[in-house]
Amino acid sequence: MSYDFDRLISRRGTNALAEDGFENYLFGADAPALNVPREEMISMWVADMQFAAPDAAIDAISVRLKHPVFGYTMNFDDQLYQAFHAWCVERYDWRFSREDMLVALGVIPALFGLVEYVCQPGDKVLSLTPAYGYFKHATVQRDREFVTSRLLPSGDGGYTIDFDDFEAKVSDPAVKLFFLCHPHNPTGRVWTDDELRRMGELCIANSVKIVSDEIHCDLLRTGSRHTPLARLFPGSRDIITCMAVSKTFNVAGMMIATVIIPDPALRSEWKRRHYPFVNPLSLAAAIGAYRNGAPWLDALRSYLDGNFAWTRRFLNEHLPKARFRIPDATYLAWVDLRAYFDESVNLTRFFLEKAGVILEGGEMFVENGNCRVRLNLACPQAQVQRSLEKIRDAIVSFHEGRTINSNSRPLKQLS
Amino acid sequence: MSYDFDRLISRRGTNALAEDGFENYLFGADAPALNVPREEMISMWVADMQFAAPDAAIDAISVRLKHPVFGYTMNFDDQLYQAFHAWCVERYDWRFSREDMLVALGVIPALFGLVEYVCQPGDKVLSLTPAYGYFKHATVQRDREFVTSRLLPSGDGGYTIDFDDFEAKVSDPAVKLFFLCHPHNPTGRVWTDDELRRMGELCIANSVKIVSDEIHCDLLRTGSRHTPLARLFPGSRDIITCMAVSKTFNVAGMMIATVIIPDPALRSEWKRRHYPFVNPLSLAAAIGAYRNGAPWLDALRSYLDGNFAWTRRFLNEHLPKARFRIPDATYLAWVDLRAYFDESVNLTRFFLEKAGVILEGGEMFVENGNCRVRLNLACPQAQVQRSLEKIRDAIVSFHEGRTINSNSRPLKQLS
Repeated sequence: MSYDFDRLISRRGTNALAEDGFENYLFGADAPALNVPREEMISMWVADMQFAAPDAAIDAISVRLKHPVFGYTMNFDDQLYQAFHAWCVERYDWRFSREDMLVALGVIPALFGLVEYVCQPGDKVLSLTPAYGYFKHATVQRDREFVTSRLLPSGDGGYTIDFDDFEAKVSDPAVKLFFLCHPHNPTGRVWTDDELRRMGELCIANSVKIVSDEIHCDLLRTGSRHTPLARLFPGSRDIITCMAVSKTFNVAGMMIATVIIPDPALRSEWKRRHYPFVNPLSLAAAIGAYRNGAPWLDALRSYLDGNFAWTRRFLNEHLPKARFRIPDATYLAWVDLRAYFDESVNLTRFFLEKAGVILEGGEMFVENGNCRVRLNLACPQAQVQRSLEKIRDAIVSFHEGRTINSNSRPLKQLS
Repeated sequence: MSYDFDRLISRRGTNALAEDGFENYLFGADAPALNVPREEMISMWVADMQFAAPDAAIDAISVRLKHPVFGYTMNFDDQLYQAFHAWCVERYDWRFSREDMLVALGVIPALFGLVEYVCQPGDKVLSLTPAYGYFKHATVQRDREFVTSRLLPSGDGGYTIDFDDFEAKVSDPAVKLFFLCHPHNPTGRVWTDDELRRMGELCIANSVKIVSDEIHCDLLRTGSRHTPLARLFPGSRDIITCMAVSKTFNVAGMMIATVIIPDPALRSEWKRRHYPFVNPLSLAAAIGAYRNGAPWLDALRSYLDGNFAWTRRFLNEHLPKARFRIPDATYLAWVDLRAYFDESVNLTRFFLEKAGVILEGGEMFVENGNCRVRLNLACPQAQVQRSLEKIRDAIVSFHEGRTINSNSRPLKQLS
């Protein structure tokens, strides 16, 4: 079976955040006036895909839709467990029991809940930066303090963990929870087993529970391998794992995620307090995707490999001072543009205004992301090409001083 | 067009709360061993319907399903507003602006959110009892105190407000929010305009905001009329109105509700803190239902009228000491069985064990519901009949002393 990932599917008129929500999400009340007509802007930001969801999910929804009653629904039976567990065994050699698996309306609501169920007000939550913004939002909105350990950039555009700093932070007795993102958004790192063991052991030694957000784990580059953190700590009750069909099969709008909580006490607290309902169509989609979606995912991964390879070639040729390492996983390119900009430039705004490309600059990722941009490459390759050409042109213009009347001025010389 | 409300649709295997979740919901860890085989039990409890949802909703989902991208979705455009607002103008002569309308994943999550956005910890929330259990759950789970004003039973099975008590409670300076249920669950009262004005004026005079949960408003008996509370207080910023397609069109599983918040400050707080996503299929279902679902709803209401009339006749004939007033609205029969039981009997458990009927006894409604049961009549009339016959037989047996070995003993004489 072949899949047409080259097909450009317009999402106009579908209430897609990618199309209609960027101004508020990226700029709040401070959205810039746009020089580029809205319909010409290229959406390369929020982490969903411009591709059609697999028939495995859509067909399962259609089948469920034939039963005409859609009342209050929860994940009572074993179908999702069986499909998802088989997926985890097959792909990650990871096993867990039925009772450990809970369902949430997404990883975001799970994070908001878990902060409350694990931590008391005033406790601290640790994460690595740059970080997914909702790690911080979930923490501070629930009146917990967010503390960070900065990843260390390596020369090739990659990142490593500063374990001295991590150990210092995690041994603060007020830290009760570590939000791990694995594979890591935005850098795309799949943490090695050694790194995972070290982080896990430090957390456990300091009585810090870990939420391992593994939502990107299925989106591996060819040759990459993912180890669920929990698999390295069999029998541990300190690790909560979040996975979902939302990223893997591009059904974020279906709002369904699985959360594996081996600690019975925490699970009870979750059950006592967490909103327990699920959309029956979403449940069907998730089951269908895990059962029958693997061939589509394999084809998708191959297509994404191509988009990343193209992007690296383009950057090498046209923006050679950009640092970019093809990520181990995710469909997100994290590009270091420190050679072209200094920190005075808000890159989200710059590329929106000057290139008509909607992307997320490093400032969207809590800290430690300055002069980087995150580009979502889960779109037809023609769109990747068009957006990168516009990005290149904007940088070239910026450095040629054509934007002399703008607030942003070139501060570094182009190669 | 005709609709087949007599068709019995099995929900087994659909993860329906009505079928698979009653033990945990009604009894927690204390579920009784069952004498009746599971498949013979009759589900008359949770407030969704045993009827097929209207094609207006299902067809709209099918149409949306043809667009194959289901990423992050929010209610950006005006389609839901236009369809829902036209519905409110047509049915309730009630108008509100686009910006006042927000979307939630149901009225329950809206309640949990609003308690936090309106009240500080330690503040009090007022409601009338018997009350929808989630009014209390939302309050106490968010560390606010729940205070109540007991409705006064009138002789005919109806209820009135104890305004002296209400005024005393609402004038407590710690009370900051009033949860009004209108039409009222479980009693089925549609509050009169005079009652609404009095409650509203007392709240406003005491700086108490009102959440008016009007989720049952479309399910009126023929001849009943519903006035949105907010319509009586034009320009007021103190009233938040919750409505939804979930009850009206039996799509509670779709998890979508509309919340009208005229206060810009509260709306900002909602937007800052409330989970903003919606399932694109649910959005389509809601728009389709409001646009094209009216004929189905009219037929449904007529069918429910018949179920209520049948129930009253049956009770008059077979359980003449039961007090029952056909409710102005909802599909819920609230039956006063004080003539047959005293407060020592848990009626939820009694009817489950002795009749094989799953219903909610008064103890599920916070307080002031002793010796009542709530029966969900939104099912084929044959099922209403079967359940009431079993209820009658159980009461007769109980009073004939056939249940002499049970923990429950008859304490009042049968007529």
